[in-house]
Amino acid sequence: MSEPFDLGGLEQFLRDFADERDWNQFHTPKNLAMALGGEVGELLEVFQWLTPEQSADLDPDRKRAAEDELADILQYVVRIADQLDINLAEAVWRKLAQNADRYPANEVRGSGNKRP
Amino acid sequence: MSEPFDLGGLEQFLRDFADERDWNQFHTPKNLAMALGGEVGELLEVFQWLTPEQSADLDPDRKRAAEDELADILQYVVRIADQLDINLAEAVWRKLAQNADRYPANEVRGSGNKRP
Amino acid sequence: MSEPFDLGGLEQFLRDFADERDWNQFHTPKNLAMALGGEVGELLEVFQWLTPEQSADLDPDRKRAAEDELADILQYVVRIADQLDINLAEAVWRKLAQNADRYPANEVRGSGNKRP
Amino acid sequence: MSEPFDLGGLEQFLRDFADERDWNQFHTPKNLAMALGGEVGELLEVFQWLTPEQSADLDPDRKRAAEDELADILQYVVRIADQLDINLAEAVWRKLAQNADRYPANEVRGSGNKRP
Repeated sequence: MSEPFDLGGLEQFLRDFADERDWNQFHTPKNLAMALGGEVGELLEVFQWLTPEQSADLDPDRKRAAEDELADILQYVVRIADQLDINLAEAVWRKLAQNADRYPANEVRGSGNKRP
Repeated sequence: MSEPFDLGGLEQFLRDFADERDWNQFHTPKNLAMALGGEVGELLEVFQWLTPEQSADLDPDRKRAAEDELADILQYVVRIADQLDINLAEAVWRKLAQNADRYPANEVRGSGNKRP
Repeated sequence: MSEPFDLGGLEQFLRDFADERDWNQFHTPKNLAMALGGEVGELLEVFQWLTPEQSADLDPDRKRAAEDELADILQYVVRIADQLDINLAEAVWRKLAQNADRYPANEVRGSGNKRP
Repeated sequence: MSEPFDLGGLEQFLRDFADERDWNQFHTPKNLAMALGGEVGELLEVFQWLTPEQSADLDPDRKRAAEDELADILQYVVRIADQLDINLAEAVWRKLAQNADRYPANEVRGSGNKRP
């Protein structure tokens, strides 16, 4: 990956936000994982009755809903990683290297059998 | 948020990864949301029988599992946003501003009734 | 609903199964809901890269996987209801009556805007 | 399992309900699995900030919410099984027999390492 990413600013913002509200008592990784699951459920609802084609061409209301849910999901991902002292950029990079090994482009091209 | 974040490098990497494998036919937002749901299910499994306290102090195997799942989740979030032409940083920032309005620190401190 | 249903035998079986293994300490509704979420994640994985049409005509391996996941999900639903002292048949019947009011057949026919 | 269960009456009711509204076009197993995921997300929200102990002793509003979500989940499980021509009672019974083999009571008693 040519450009690494840095979610440290968002991590710090969310940490301060929770500290100021005395929310760390609720923000255990277990609870946050459930909250993440709740947000993903809301994202699934956006797409559930749409065809795959329709899901790629959302009307403005559904697009805004998808934006909101993705934002919530990303916040919980960053918060869980912070509470577990996980470096997300390192974790993503390690996974990407594994995936590059596991799914060589010339072997899996266009195949839905291998996990896309 | 003092420091914005930039996931553009990861977005480009994942886009190239999918292009090289001819996977865009599978990567509709609908399908990707389901795949995201599958990964979140795996994250829930890491924590499901642990107490909240245990979830904050994982053994190395569970911590590695949590890292892997969070990495997968983040990748799908970035991929969905890319396929929908959503700017994640803008979406997160808008949501954070809403949350700051909705949960004033001095009103909700330590309350689990308001959504932490 | 002309014929009520009775999941009492399954409920009792699962209760005995947990008692014999001293698993009630783990079987809080919170934990069971997470376990349910994990199983639903596995069901989503079965369908994630399939078209809607393909999802209705599964090969034997995927059909068996769907059977296993639906069985796991149903078990957790029954176990959660038991731990919360919820009568599932009553809850379902109440919801069905609400849905019949909310979605009159002659108004919503064929509409994906209303929740199918 | 001494008493089998029969969800045939509910299955038939839901089939008629969908037929009358021309909803079978939306009720592919893929779409229904997503809808199931959405409902499970709502169930997770009920419990997310509660301690395990609190989750076993819900106030009336949360208990009603749990009833509604479990009812929705059960309906989607039955609908998916119907659309895939799966006999849920047989699938559950096969899984229970596997679990009895996999988790002998005298070996796993009280252990959270084995999956409860």
